[in-house]
Amino acid sequence: MSIVLIHQRSDLDKFKKLLQEKLPNTKIELYDEVENPDNVEFAISWKHPHGIFKEFKNLKVIASFGAGVYHILSDKELPQDLKITKIVNEQLTKDMCDFVLMQCLNYLRKTPYYFKKQKMNRWEPKQYKAPKDVQVGILGLGTLGKAVAETLVARNFKVSGWSNSTKQIEGVESFSKNQLRAFLKKTNILVCLLPLTEETKGILNTAIFSQMPNKSCLINVARGQHLNEKDLKQAIENGKIEAAFLDVFAEEPLPTEHWFWNNEAIHLTPHIASVTKPTEVVSQLAENYKRFKVNKSLNYEIDKEKAY
Amino acid sequence: MSIVLIHQRSDLDKFKKLLQEKLPNTKIELYDEVENPDNVEFAISWKHPHGIFKEFKNLKVIASFGAGVYHILSDKELPQDLKITKIVNEQLTKDMCDFVLMQCLNYLRKTPYYFKKQKMNRWEPKQYKAPKDVQVGILGLGTLGKAVAETLVARNFKVSGWSNSTKQIEGVESFSKNQLRAFLKKTNILVCLLPLTEETKGILNTAIFSQMPNKSCLINVARGQHLNEKDLKQAIENGKIEAAFLDVFAEEPLPTEHWFWNNEAIHLTPHIASVTKPTEVVSQLAENYKRFKVNKSLNYEIDKEKAY
Repeated sequence: MSIVLIHQRSDLDKFKKLLQEKLPNTKIELYDEVENPDNVEFAISWKHPHGIFKEFKNLKVIASFGAGVYHILSDKELPQDLKITKIVNEQLTKDMCDFVLMQCLNYLRKTPYYFKKQKMNRWEPKQYKAPKDVQVGILGLGTLGKAVAETLVARNFKVSGWSNSTKQIEGVESFSKNQLRAFLKKTNILVCLLPLTEETKGILNTAIFSQMPNKSCLINVARGQHLNEKDLKQAIENGKIEAAFLDVFAEEPLPTEHWFWNNEAIHLTPHIASVTKPTEVVSQLAENYKRFKVNKSLNYEIDKEKAY
Repeated sequence: MSIVLIHQRSDLDKFKKLLQEKLPNTKIELYDEVENPDNVEFAISWKHPHGIFKEFKNLKVIASFGAGVYHILSDKELPQDLKITKIVNEQLTKDMCDFVLMQCLNYLRKTPYYFKKQKMNRWEPKQYKAPKDVQVGILGLGTLGKAVAETLVARNFKVSGWSNSTKQIEGVESFSKNQLRAFLKKTNILVCLLPLTEETKGILNTAIFSQMPNKSCLINVARGQHLNEKDLKQAIENGKIEAAFLDVFAEEPLPTEHWFWNNEAIHLTPHIASVTKPTEVVSQLAENYKRFKVNKSLNYEIDKEKAY
C-alpha cells in the first residue's frame, strides 16, 4: 500500500525525502509516478486537479498540506466516506499571530504612508492612535482566530470576535452568529480568519463593510474567495475602508493586470502570512499515517458537516 | 512665583491650558511672555536655546518635556544645583514597545521588500525567519529597554541586552559593559535605546557594526546623535547592515538632500516611535510641581553623574 503526494510546489521531492525518513518502510509516490492506483490508501494533497481522487479506489484518507481544506471539499467528484485531516501547527499559528499583529501596528503607525513619504524626501509626521483606543474585530475564533485574539489583547488592543457560538477568551468580547451587526458597528480593524466554506465564500462584501465605521481597515489572511473584490473597491471609494492589507487572493499569483496592485489603499503581500514549512509538518503527517495504519483515530480530522 | 514653558511645538498654548487646569493658582508663562525672570522657579523645557536658563536667577527645577534630558545637560552654560526631571510615562513606554516590535517583524517579514514589489506588480514571495531563530540585542536596559525586551520575549524572539551592569529580566540574556563583543557577535537585530550622554554619542559606529554578523539589522529609536552616519553608510556598503530602521536623526527634520532618504537599505520614520502627548504628561508635570512646592522629593529626577 502507498501514499500519494499531490502539490504544485517545486520542492516536492525534498518533502518526499523528509517523509520517507520518517516512514522508511512505506511506499511514497508523487502523483505522476503512481504505479498502481489501487495501492494508494493515503493522499497528502494541496489544490489537486478536481476529479482525480476517484482514480484511487482504496483511498481512505486525504491529508491537507495546510490549515485549509476547502481545496479538497470543493471537489464535486470527491469520493464519499474519506477521512480528511488538516494541519494544525504551532509555528504556523505563531506566524499568523505575528503577521496580523504586525499589520495592525503598521496600520496604526502608518507604515505605508511613511514609505511613500520617504520616496518623496518628505518629513511629515502624523499623530497615531494607541492600541487601547482601537477595536480589532476578528471573524472566526477557531485555533488561529483565538491565538490572534490573545496576541492582540496582550498588546493592549480592544478585541472582539465573531463566531458561530460565543467563546470564552480572556479579554475578548465574543459575538455569536446573529450578533454580526453589533460586532461590526464598533470594529475599526476587521480581520478575516474564517474557514472557507460555501457559507463564508464572499462574506467580505458590502453587507459587512457598510455596517462598519467610516475609515476602517480590513486585513484578509484567510482565503481570497472570502472577499468580494468589487464590493471592496466600492467600500474604498465611499470611504468605509481606508486601508486593506491583503495576503490572499482568489487567483494566486495575483494577475499582473489586477487593480489591487496599484490602488493606494491596498497593501498586498504574496500569501506569506503563515507558510507551511515541510520540516514543520512532516512529523505531523507521518504520525497521522501511522495512526491510520493501526486504526487509531486521526489527529485534526475535520468535521465534514461543518467543513472545517 | 511662576512656571516657564519652553518648546518649539506649535500647540504649546493648548498644553499651557491643560497645565493651568491642573494648577489653577500658579502663574504659567511661555518663554516669550515672561514678565519677571526672577519669579521663575520651575521650567518645563524641550530643546531650549542654550544659555537661556541663566536668565532665571531663582530657577530650581528643569523638567524635560520627554524621556531624554541630553538637550538640557548638553547646555554648557547650565546653572549648577538645578534639579532635572524626565518623563516616564506608561503610554510612551508601550508606544515604544509597539514600534520596536513592529519594526522587528517588518524586518523578518520583509515589509519594505513587498511594498517595493507591489509598485512593480510583482508576486515574488520569499521565505521568512521565525522570531525564535532571531536574536535581538538591545543597547540599554533602562525603563524603555527593559519593557521592549519583555515585549520581544513574549513574541518568541531571542533577546539579549547590554547595559552598564547586568540586569535580571526573565528570558533576557544580560551583558555588562565589558562584554560588548560577546553581545554583538550573536546579534541579528541591534536596537538602540541608550540614553544620549557624552559617552554614548556616536556609539553606533564601525567598532560596533564590524563585530556583528553579516546582513544584520539596525533599529535606532534613541537619538540621532548615537549614530555615526558615515560608518552606517560603510556598513551598508560592505554588507554588515542590510536594513536600518531609523526614527531619529542628528538634525530633525531630516534635511531634504540627506542620503538617508534614497538609500534602499534605510527605512525611515519622522521621529514617531513614541510621541509625548500633552494630555498624557501634564498630570505628571503638575504633580512634580506640587511636590516641589512642598519640598517633597521629585519623581523621575535624574542622576546628573550618570546623565540619565
